[in-house]
Amino acid sequence: MKRRIALIVEYDGHGLCGWQRQENGPSVQERLEEALKHVEGEPVRTVACGRTDASVHAEAQVVHADVNAVRIEKSPRAYTHGVNSHLPEGVRVVAVRNVDGDFHARFDCIERAYRYQIWNREVASALQAWRHWWIPLDLDVEAMRVSSAHLLGKQDFTTFRASGCQAGSPVREVRTIEVRRQGCIISIDIRADAFLYHMVRNIVGALVWAGLGKYSADDVKQLLGLHDRSQLAAPMAPAHGLYFADAVYSVFSSRTVLEAMLGKGDKDE
Amino acid sequence: MKRRIALIVEYDGHGLCGWQRQENGPSVQERLEEALKHVEGEPVRTVACGRTDASVHAEAQVVHADVNAVRIEKSPRAYTHGVNSHLPEGVRVVAVRNVDGDFHARFDCIERAYRYQIWNREVASALQAWRHWWIPLDLDVEAMRVSSAHLLGKQDFTTFRASGCQAGSPVREVRTIEVRRQGCIISIDIRADAFLYHMVRNIVGALVWAGLGKYSADDVKQLLGLHDRSQLAAPMAPAHGLYFADAVYSVFSSRTVLEAMLGKGDKDE
Repeated sequence: MKRRIALIVEYDGHGLCGWQRQENGPSVQERLEEALKHVEGEPVRTVACGRTDASVHAEAQVVHADVNAVRIEKSPRAYTHGVNSHLPEGVRVVAVRNVDGDFHARFDCIERAYRYQIWNREVASALQAWRHWWIPLDLDVEAMRVSSAHLLGKQDFTTFRASGCQAGSPVREVRTIEVRRQGCIISIDIRADAFLYHMVRNIVGALVWAGLGKYSADDVKQLLGLHDRSQLAAPMAPAHGLYFADAVYSVFSSRTVLEAMLGKGDKDE
Repeated sequence: MKRRIALIVEYDGHGLCGWQRQENGPSVQERLEEALKHVEGEPVRTVACGRTDASVHAEAQVVHADVNAVRIEKSPRAYTHGVNSHLPEGVRVVAVRNVDGDFHARFDCIERAYRYQIWNREVASALQAWRHWWIPLDLDVEAMRVSSAHLLGKQDFTTFRASGCQAGSPVREVRTIEVRRQGCIISIDIRADAFLYHMVRNIVGALVWAGLGKYSADDVKQLLGLHDRSQLAAPMAPAHGLYFADAVYSVFSSRTVLEAMLGKGDKDE
């Protein structure tokens, strides 16, 4: 008998060609399905909350799969360790949850969050090189914040959508954008009902132009109103600074599951 | 004409055999001296504040070298970029400072600091695997803190010294030890006048045993009093969780130089 589970997956995008199976290189999906096949003894199909591009990282991607009910119910912990023992070091199943048989990682997701990280120092980092976008020029965080406010709410994001985007509607609801500096790291946290193809990276590219003074406070608003990416648009931010951070469902959110796992870590000591 | 400079160097220890030139693999010193030779047009000898083991990282190692006075005085910034352009991605000169001709990176250093990072969660991290010591068991941070207090002050650290240690005296003055938890990361910051060979990793090993309940609060004190590593000593912590964090001189400290470089980053926004 099969049982549907939701897997919360962390991965380092470096050297991977993103979530989805590809002809041109190793994908997270391929690696995860291989590991599940080892444990299950038969092919397993997985469905993720959303795709990620090559080099994009994930802290809490959500994936559903149908697996052997007896084994998973006996010990979700042992099951997780079993799957992880067949995964490369850069991909880890952090937790599994039992979900209803009709749970769908993509269609049931009501909110997604991404974080983008910028390394803002004259010299690149030796320790964080493929984890942040290195920008050696001065960035005005307050200007980035002012520009980001124009993107809040339910709007037509055609300007921030890649030409290859296959979504039916360009309307998305951006619920929060937070721009923060801590030391030389600038992080941009974006939460929305869903995202168009390359939307986060195009938004980050525009906010960086605002931070560099190439856009005035109103430019991002005007740009959004143009519904056109071919005019005035800033270059897209590179993939390696992007992290899939949270997927929210009516029954749980992947970040909440992670935080509950930390035990004592919930409260900082 | 030559000029002595102090270079502040960041490196990712993964895949390197530590600071010092070795027969058995690439060292930071070898890489840095090769890059300096490219810029200087002749061999350059470097002296570091201290050695680091294979796989140990550095955020702010200090190294001195004698270089062409005209070039470095014209633009320390251009010089830094020149050296970095000949270094692998995992090694970066973050800053250079002019120092007196008799400045010595090792002998003039009056205080060193290391940070040790532990990933304390049931599942290892896909994003941080070779940056932290993964410990899936519960660690009692308060117990680690209580035990660490016994190590403060000027004491004989023979118990925490590797058998191959060549230092003349086993006495060192540990000035601060801070054990902190943030989420699933436990960090241990240790500051001393100087450290014996493997001293930080042996101390971390003992504090982890205290955190696991294998040592009582007094055991670390007793252990220190034994002046003997062959009895009761906890295993040494692995190298890949260790970071060289600061070198203090009468004229500057490497961490202060880094913080001053951040410009706006000094104050978090």
